[in-house]
Amino acid sequence: MRIIGIDPGVAILGYGVLDRMGNRLKVVDYGSIQTPARTAKATRLKQIYDAATQLFSKTHPDVVAIEKLFFNRNTTTAFDVAQARGVVMLAAEEAGATITEYTPMEVKMAVVGYGGAKKRQVQEMVKTLLCLAEIPKPDDVADALGVAICQAHSTTFTDRMSIRGWKE
Amino acid sequence: MRIIGIDPGVAILGYGVLDRMGNRLKVVDYGSIQTPARTAKATRLKQIYDAATQLFSKTHPDVVAIEKLFFNRNTTTAFDVAQARGVVMLAAEEAGATITEYTPMEVKMAVVGYGGAKKRQVQEMVKTLLCLAEIPKPDDVADALGVAICQAHSTTFTDRMSIRGWKE
Repeated sequence: MRIIGIDPGVAILGYGVLDRMGNRLKVVDYGSIQTPARTAKATRLKQIYDAATQLFSKTHPDVVAIEKLFFNRNTTTAFDVAQARGVVMLAAEEAGATITEYTPMEVKMAVVGYGGAKKRQVQEMVKTLLCLAEIPKPDDVADALGVAICQAHSTTFTDRMSIRGWKE
Repeated sequence: MRIIGIDPGVAILGYGVLDRMGNRLKVVDYGSIQTPARTAKATRLKQIYDAATQLFSKTHPDVVAIEKLFFNRNTTTAFDVAQARGVVMLAAEEAGATITEYTPMEVKMAVVGYGGAKKRQVQEMVKTLLCLAEIPKPDDVADALGVAICQAHSTTFTDRMSIRGWKE
């Protein structure tokens, strides 16, 4: 199963592509979509949409997992990120992927085992779990890989539940 | 000059299409894009994007004016509307339109002449200014026509400024 984790943003959107085979995770690709400042908002949205469409068409994800937004003080920025999130969801839907959403706390729980973990702890665990030589940069990329790991663990858990005949 | 005003939303997105000829406004079309509840968010975003793309391709707007979001208590809903707003901006950008944004207060100022005007006052003025027999329903459609009027007045003002040789 191929999973893409997304850390949404306007200036920098991080993505991480993982293959899950049983309990093993293989890193396929990771990186970021970046758009230039001082560019019209709609132009940046189109750049993000085009780049996401290209990414999904190249990597054929089964699941696209996108981090949920939480309210912060700067609502203008949060709305801009939500707009970018919208065009990425559209691209994922058009690519026929299953789309899932996780809160930052769910990602921390899945990666570190503690919902109040620090950003740095999450990044260190991403590096360790994926056997990477270094923490991927910028932060948005490491965060996106964290979202993908969260999805992979969640899927493993769901698989176990169905093997045992559990139902939600 | 053809103007489309948009009142963004997920369940109901209102639109109003006006032609401005000098100081006169002609109503070309108005209506709403609606998506069913209990449908996946990404599916609804794609429905909105497809319908907006079709609307812009049919009507060829010079300007698409979209109401800005303001923070309300329900941030989850506000983020969902921002995502819908993102895919409409994408569709407008792909259609080659100029995209503008107005706050609810700017729309009230332009339509009623008072930023604190009640919703009903705005709707009555929309009806009067556009010589409509009734206030268009649902509210989102009347609001979208208000945004289009706001854009039309703003353009008139800018034109006057340039005739007089004023610069911002």
